[in-house]
Amino acid sequence: MATKKGRIFIVSAPSGSGKTTLCEKLFKTDLELDDSVSMTTRPSRPGEVNGRDYYFVSKKNFLQRIKEKGFLEWTTTYGWYYGTPKDFFEKALKKGRDILLSIDVKGAMRVKRLHPEAVLIFIEPPSVSALKQRLYSRNQDGQKEIKKRLSTAKKELSFARRYDYCVINDNINSAMEKLKAIIIAERCKFQKGVV
Amino acid sequence: MATKKGRIFIVSAPSGSGKTTLCEKLFKTDLELDDSVSMTTRPSRPGEVNGRDYYFVSKKNFLQRIKEKGFLEWTTTYGWYYGTPKDFFEKALKKGRDILLSIDVKGAMRVKRLHPEAVLIFIEPPSVSALKQRLYSRNQDGQKEIKKRLSTAKKELSFARRYDYCVINDNINSAMEKLKAIIIAERCKFQKGVV
Repeated sequence: MATKKGRIFIVSAPSGSGKTTLCEKLFKTDLELDDSVSMTTRPSRPGEVNGRDYYFVSKKNFLQRIKEKGFLEWTTTYGWYYGTPKDFFEKALKKGRDILLSIDVKGAMRVKRLHPEAVLIFIEPPSVSALKQRLYSRNQDGQKEIKKRLSTAKKELSFARRYDYCVINDNINSAMEKLKAIIIAERCKFQKGVV
Repeated sequence: MATKKGRIFIVSAPSGSGKTTLCEKLFKTDLELDDSVSMTTRPSRPGEVNGRDYYFVSKKNFLQRIKEKGFLEWTTTYGWYYGTPKDFFEKALKKGRDILLSIDVKGAMRVKRLHPEAVLIFIEPPSVSALKQRLYSRNQDGQKEIKKRLSTAKKELSFARRYDYCVINDNINSAMEKLKAIIIAERCKFQKGVV
């Protein structure tokens, strides 16, 4: 008899919305959220640690895992592969652990189809111009890369309405308060099929 | 063009669950919730103020208002009439104010039928025995009154699953945190029919 089933929280945001910082802060709170480390073929950025930020693998390795149906969802962005390994994910849920997934809108829609009870949270930059500024000030991507990211961001913003919640990241403290509130509130809901 | 429509939060709880204290605290936070003062025919208890805690009116006055369809919902409990005046309620919603209604399960179900977007929050005592203890320690009701309240409480508890959220009031600080989280989270949801 299940007494508690893990909940799935999915956070998506256009590139440069501050999602990574917010998620890192969320994992450090006392909310006890499990981090699902994604797998990717893109090279690591300075400071990123294999197994903590991502599992950095070769394209060959990634394609093999796709073949073995080892991903909950996977996608390609800017030419790189990104995926959520299935094994860790399913184990955590069975143990009654809540998982926070930080994935793109396409991945989010895929997981929602498989797990309709998943809670979708969209993080929105205050405005596209603010987003532009953030991408430029980050100064880690080239001009062409920034333009590509901005165009993707605009497409992603049009998905916001399919999400359960939308948090505007105009202020990191206020955005954090909202994200925490969503998780606490969702835990006060009755879970279907659980006694 | 409406930019924001007021939200309706409904809090119900078995008698003695600490609902009144929690709601009073909620109104004192910076959440800017409007209080809908109920109307009742029951006599005021020591410390209760007319127009703040309730509008204390005569039965004749109450029945006249029912006839004029002046209540959003009304009910009788332990022989007394209780109702939510419609005029204040509708004005506040139009102004985009969020309202917190503290009403019983029957009233909550009625408002939910009229306003399906209303958010229902059930406050549960940690256990029926805890509830019993609280009612006795309150020492303001007679033995017979307590038994009547306990029997109603058990009936009300069976309604909890029809609510959107359930907050167990085993600790007032933790219950307050959850109530606040529910309100903040709901405000991050998209409102249908509002641009």
